[in-house]
Amino acid sequence: MTQALLSELRATLGQAQVLSEGDLSAYERDWRKRYAGKALGVVRPGSTAEVAAVVRLAAAHGVSIVPQGGNTGLVGGGVPDASGAQLLLSLQRLNRVRELDAANLTLTAEAGCILQAVQAAAAAQQLLFPLSLAAEGSCTIGGNLAANAGGTQVLRYGNARELCLGLEVVTPQGKIWDGLGGLRKDNTGYDLRDLYIGSEGTLGIITAATLKLYPAPLAQMTALAACASLEAAVALLGLAQARAGSSLTGFEVMNGFALSLVAKHFPQLTQPLGPQPWTVLLELSDSESEAHARAVFEGLLEAALEQGLIHDAAVAESLEQSHALWHLRESIPLAQSEEGLNIKHDIALPVSRIPAFVASTDAALRARWPGIRLVDFGHLGDGNLHYNVQAPEGMDAAAFLRSQERAVNELVFDAVLAHGGSISAEHGIGQLKREELARRKHPVALELMRAIKKALDPQGLMNPNRLI
Amino acid sequence: MTQALLSELRATLGQAQVLSEGDLSAYERDWRKRYAGKALGVVRPGSTAEVAAVVRLAAAHGVSIVPQGGNTGLVGGGVPDASGAQLLLSLQRLNRVRELDAANLTLTAEAGCILQAVQAAAAAQQLLFPLSLAAEGSCTIGGNLAANAGGTQVLRYGNARELCLGLEVVTPQGKIWDGLGGLRKDNTGYDLRDLYIGSEGTLGIITAATLKLYPAPLAQMTALAACASLEAAVALLGLAQARAGSSLTGFEVMNGFALSLVAKHFPQLTQPLGPQPWTVLLELSDSESEAHARAVFEGLLEAALEQGLIHDAAVAESLEQSHALWHLRESIPLAQSEEGLNIKHDIALPVSRIPAFVASTDAALRARWPGIRLVDFGHLGDGNLHYNVQAPEGMDAAAFLRSQERAVNELVFDAVLAHGGSISAEHGIGQLKREELARRKHPVALELMRAIKKALDPQGLMNPNRLI
Repeated sequence: MTQALLSELRATLGQAQVLSEGDLSAYERDWRKRYAGKALGVVRPGSTAEVAAVVRLAAAHGVSIVPQGGNTGLVGGGVPDASGAQLLLSLQRLNRVRELDAANLTLTAEAGCILQAVQAAAAAQQLLFPLSLAAEGSCTIGGNLAANAGGTQVLRYGNARELCLGLEVVTPQGKIWDGLGGLRKDNTGYDLRDLYIGSEGTLGIITAATLKLYPAPLAQMTALAACASLEAAVALLGLAQARAGSSLTGFEVMNGFALSLVAKHFPQLTQPLGPQPWTVLLELSDSESEAHARAVFEGLLEAALEQGLIHDAAVAESLEQSHALWHLRESIPLAQSEEGLNIKHDIALPVSRIPAFVASTDAALRARWPGIRLVDFGHLGDGNLHYNVQAPEGMDAAAFLRSQERAVNELVFDAVLAHGGSISAEHGIGQLKREELARRKHPVALELMRAIKKALDPQGLMNPNRLI
Repeated sequence: MTQALLSELRATLGQAQVLSEGDLSAYERDWRKRYAGKALGVVRPGSTAEVAAVVRLAAAHGVSIVPQGGNTGLVGGGVPDASGAQLLLSLQRLNRVRELDAANLTLTAEAGCILQAVQAAAAAQQLLFPLSLAAEGSCTIGGNLAANAGGTQVLRYGNARELCLGLEVVTPQGKIWDGLGGLRKDNTGYDLRDLYIGSEGTLGIITAATLKLYPAPLAQMTALAACASLEAAVALLGLAQARAGSSLTGFEVMNGFALSLVAKHFPQLTQPLGPQPWTVLLELSDSESEAHARAVFEGLLEAALEQGLIHDAAVAESLEQSHALWHLRESIPLAQSEEGLNIKHDIALPVSRIPAFVASTDAALRARWPGIRLVDFGHLGDGNLHYNVQAPEGMDAAAFLRSQERAVNELVFDAVLAHGGSISAEHGIGQLKREELARRKHPVALELMRAIKKALDPQGLMNPNRLI
């Protein structure tokens, strides 16, 4: 029967776009090599109509589908299970930018467009598509939307959700919903767009999206500031928001240990402020001029010094220096890998609760696992911490992970929920946190989610056992 | 049986909060007196638990519920039908601001809070809740969210949807989903929040919300500019967005006829630019100083003059003058009422398509109904026009409406869809546009919406025959 399906798929898409033999590990395994599955086959449709045809054929055979974009996800949401019974549907050939409407500040792109290509299409018209994250050279816009990606510009521009005005979706029945269009206001019924965004392929397949663009800022400036405490960093955020308004496009925080790992493993990177309890990276984007941006920045940092919120600061003097400051921040995950296996938590909290959360959770972890090392960093402006745990020095990191990861997660997630937070800020649920979600999400929310899943995908064929 | 329900409700809420006799027209009739219904009773629960109890009792009796906030809606979504069999559930007693977290820039308010009270609670802490619309003195935040209200600040801050971080909802089964919380990022499952926002009470009852706040701007300035054409107004918008970035918080357009009606019926209002083909109202909000805002404004208007986008401009010199300019804009609907009955269209289009839409639709209307008068104005920055039609001068407006409204709507809505627009930008669907929606929405979207309605409200008791 599965051979019959593969034959029908080959007849529909052409021989070359249905892969079922040879090494398919690029599709079957996630890039971090955490999840290795086995697909019945890999299909590479070249149009929305072909995606719909694949879905209809698979549904007729009762075969489930795992949609995949750039395969850069962090939660195992885009790779097949080990059964060999799932169809892997790659969106990579749907990679056209269909339209750019400069006067409407919108761009319509197919799901398989690489994020960087979308950014470049906007930049070619002196416009900005602000979604920006580490994987931008290989992740796809469809995957970004399916996972509601975050990144470094959320403080000003929002998550992927807030950057999308319309979607085209293939439903689990293989019908095409054309919900594209560049409208800022549209109150004609339930918000299907936002239901699909963040649904991780479990309700249908996003095939194209209309995205918001912005005028490119004329100047961007970056600074580092040294804070004695996380409370001071939160107060600095408030001051920066009041003084710079929406010109404040980045506000990242890094604890001393995170930057010490960067210093240890990447000694060639200059750290202008030296070791500090907490270092903040601020970015301003200005629509007037570099001189204006600099004046705002200097005024802000002087006020922060006067108010005792910071005790040192360094403003980048050039684009190269700006990039170097961001590079420090972006080197933290790599430095962690160099240091050894670690336990990552992508969590969100109300900004106001972060200092208390970190103080009490750091202390609880240290009390239970003496010598445990905490890499606390992230998008403080969005209340999003990458709250990572490194095994005590000298201990076998792999053994520590094997034996303690579950207990560490339990402690951290309990603390997150006690502080009104979320156990997944920007990476999603996928396979990794599905059980955690079922255990920890509000029971009425779970009921509503299950009712929606059952209503839209009664056969349960869309990315089953992911998210829900 | 209905008497049994009323008795149970009285036992639960107390005698005084269940009204079934006397003049209930304040609840049963919308404020524009377009829809007059008859309720089985009016219940006024005082807490979320009481709302849930009412829903459970009504569900047990198979009685449907119409939730109501401030009863300021424009589409008949919050008043009962004429059957006398529906329960009107007023949220007005749920009117506490539960929490304001200045460091997190969030506020949690109950559904029955008047919008102005929410704005005032924020302003008391030098913070801004930016949702602003004509009915703000009497509409409720719950109603704003149920309808996804728009208003005058959408260009910068988004619709009600974008200003909400979390919800508390009573489901059609009378369960309470606690989805409150001030998180900027939360990727733990389907976006139930946005599903409820804009669902007009058909999927459950919003009882509270966590809202986004912003630092209050230090200065606000307003200007009028005269444009020869709508194309020039759209180009001016692009220039203003590029130069002022997100400081541009208002961009309204008014055609000559709209302002001539204001001049006719409110001659005491000064119109600084005199009669013009198109007049634009621009507003800048600045986090630095009034001097800075003025410099940005003057630079922008000079550049617009040089580029020939405008031929005259007037910048308000004081807060009073700013208010006077806004007052001109806000007087258009009143001037229309003074002039006589008219046909209103709350539509959205891609900004880039607006000039072509208006040119061709104005022409088509004039060709079919010689002498017809067009009041074109609205939130150009959001692509949202209030595209209103006044009967030809001298003609009986009521008779024109009776005989021609359907044909006028047909022509306008056909044109809207041909230009990629929406037939309801910010007012919603309610009773007014339900049939139009069923006829004009993408059929797959309608299927998805109906499946969701059936899954979450299988008894069909939540605001039936509204929206869907």
